[in-house]
Amino acid sequence: MTTRPKTLLAAVLAVAAILAPNLDLNAQTDPLASWNDGSAKKAIIEFVQVTTDRASPKFVAPEARIATFDQDGTLWVEQPVYTQVVYCLERVPAVVKAKPELRNVEPFRTVMSGDREAMAKLSMKDLEKILAATLSGMSVEQFATEVKDWLATARHSRFKRPYTDLVYQPMLEVMQYLRANGYKTYIVTGGGQDFVRVYSEQVYGVPPEHVVGTVGGTRWGYDKTGRPFLTKEPHLLLNDDNAGKPQGIHLMIGRRPNAAFGNSRGDREMLEYTGAGEGARLMMLVLHDDATREYAYGPAQGLPSTKIGVFPQTLYDEARKNGWIVISIKNDWKRIFPFE
Amino acid sequence: MTTRPKTLLAAVLAVAAILAPNLDLNAQTDPLASWNDGSAKKAIIEFVQVTTDRASPKFVAPEARIATFDQDGTLWVEQPVYTQVVYCLERVPAVVKAKPELRNVEPFRTVMSGDREAMAKLSMKDLEKILAATLSGMSVEQFATEVKDWLATARHSRFKRPYTDLVYQPMLEVMQYLRANGYKTYIVTGGGQDFVRVYSEQVYGVPPEHVVGTVGGTRWGYDKTGRPFLTKEPHLLLNDDNAGKPQGIHLMIGRRPNAAFGNSRGDREMLEYTGAGEGARLMMLVLHDDATREYAYGPAQGLPSTKIGVFPQTLYDEARKNGWIVISIKNDWKRIFPFE
Repeated sequence: MTTRPKTLLAAVLAVAAILAPNLDLNAQTDPLASWNDGSAKKAIIEFVQVTTDRASPKFVAPEARIATFDQDGTLWVEQPVYTQVVYCLERVPAVVKAKPELRNVEPFRTVMSGDREAMAKLSMKDLEKILAATLSGMSVEQFATEVKDWLATARHSRFKRPYTDLVYQPMLEVMQYLRANGYKTYIVTGGGQDFVRVYSEQVYGVPPEHVVGTVGGTRWGYDKTGRPFLTKEPHLLLNDDNAGKPQGIHLMIGRRPNAAFGNSRGDREMLEYTGAGEGARLMMLVLHDDATREYAYGPAQGLPSTKIGVFPQTLYDEARKNGWIVISIKNDWKRIFPFE
Repeated sequence: MTTRPKTLLAAVLAVAAILAPNLDLNAQTDPLASWNDGSAKKAIIEFVQVTTDRASPKFVAPEARIATFDQDGTLWVEQPVYTQVVYCLERVPAVVKAKPELRNVEPFRTVMSGDREAMAKLSMKDLEKILAATLSGMSVEQFATEVKDWLATARHSRFKRPYTDLVYQPMLEVMQYLRANGYKTYIVTGGGQDFVRVYSEQVYGVPPEHVVGTVGGTRWGYDKTGRPFLTKEPHLLLNDDNAGKPQGIHLMIGRRPNAAFGNSRGDREMLEYTGAGEGARLMMLVLHDDATREYAYGPAQGLPSTKIGVFPQTLYDEARKNGWIVISIKNDWKRIFPFE
């Protein structure tokens, strides 16, 4: 009985070949159609081939295939300011409406004034107060609703489109290509874990349990009907940036990634951690060098300076030294956004 | 072209039916063979049926199917003392060998004396010192090696077998049955996340990324060759017990489970959190009422008192009130261990 299905399968395939002689069961389209031919595209394809071919000495068992992706600047636009920071600033009116006593308290007064110049001068401490007021104090379900509602109407200042439209088509293709080859694709972001989980499945095909991000604690409690709920608290459990990225990967995944993608100083340790494993490794950094189609910032390679998503020359040099691949948006990406 | 494969499939199935008229493609064996027929077994099967049948109003999309399992006392034996505590105590000689100055310092001196009576009197503060000394200070890889080596030789005091043999066959069947029906099975344990991850895949078929447990921070650093590594730190990020269980589920999974399994006071909030969701829900508690084949402890239902895995009468009453199902080892389990 145990060999019967095999025999049956052989018969079935023979019949299929007779019935459909022109059906190409191996019909292939380019999984990385938005990439120009070049060393970056070639590296991705070679990595997948050597790690999924059972005959390859670099074969990776399907259950161990892990790829991690930074989000801001790697999967979607981070300029001129991180989307989540825009969210927090735009949530301030609702917070002030619920707590009118905040209207004349800084930094809420400045944000309510709408004075962009004054807002640009807010200190990190001011920003932390705004983040705490807009990202904690509500139930986890309420927060998800607030983010979802905002994403439905908010528009990017330059592209005049929903932020979730501003994802990089070539990176979506890499994620899909990796998943089609048995890789689990995780987002490992300095952004808020609960924030990104709201749209990660719909936008990237990444389920909430595959989102690792900066995350705070929660408080357990019961409502008047006795129903339990979790309230988002301001205290930080994990600052998922720099060394926090490999720490978050160990905490949430417990395996070392085989491939990691980033675009800034904050991704350095994640790429180092990924590269320190055995076998085939793929470490890539997106360099934003296309002001016409997206943005140009570094300051690596003489690109303009930025406060958001800094890619310093030292990181560029480390990439060269370690065999990490720098993706040039200008040269490597045929198309940037899905809507193009 | 798009309908061609369907036509082909129909032809192939017709051919298959002719070629193999006696091949029962739906041959079924009982997925819960170690369970006696009764309300517990029935509830598990009904839950799976209503949540996986697309025609059912309680259908759950495959990607949202989550089941969480406590470990100690739910998936494996926790008496007479938690396995991980045995591990920590038995690691003390190696720790003292590496740091001889600890030999005459309490509580290490008492543990080194081997005086079981004195060891039983160690305070919680003493125990914390032992846990810190044996569960932190080493790289995450070194820790995994230490646990693996210990598990290979350690034996349970009563059953004289490796601890990883002392898993409950009926619960393995539930996990396999749920996974075969598209559920992701997570372990949500008060035990150490890094500890359980060492053997979870081999013993339960649960990969490391599906283990949520009590977990401490890590420190990022580089060795002399420049290779980065993470060192286990003593400070706690999550105490995954009681309210910490739903907090850990939100942190690590980000979805509410559809089913949850526990056996003690520490699982109460996880079951409440699971039960507070919509649609079909399955909450189950293992009651250890079989001193002959395993152990008997409560104190619910007049069972003997215990310090390990307390199942109070209040929890039993809450289970009754909420429709949670209490599994009686004595009556519901035909067979307890895989080796029987």
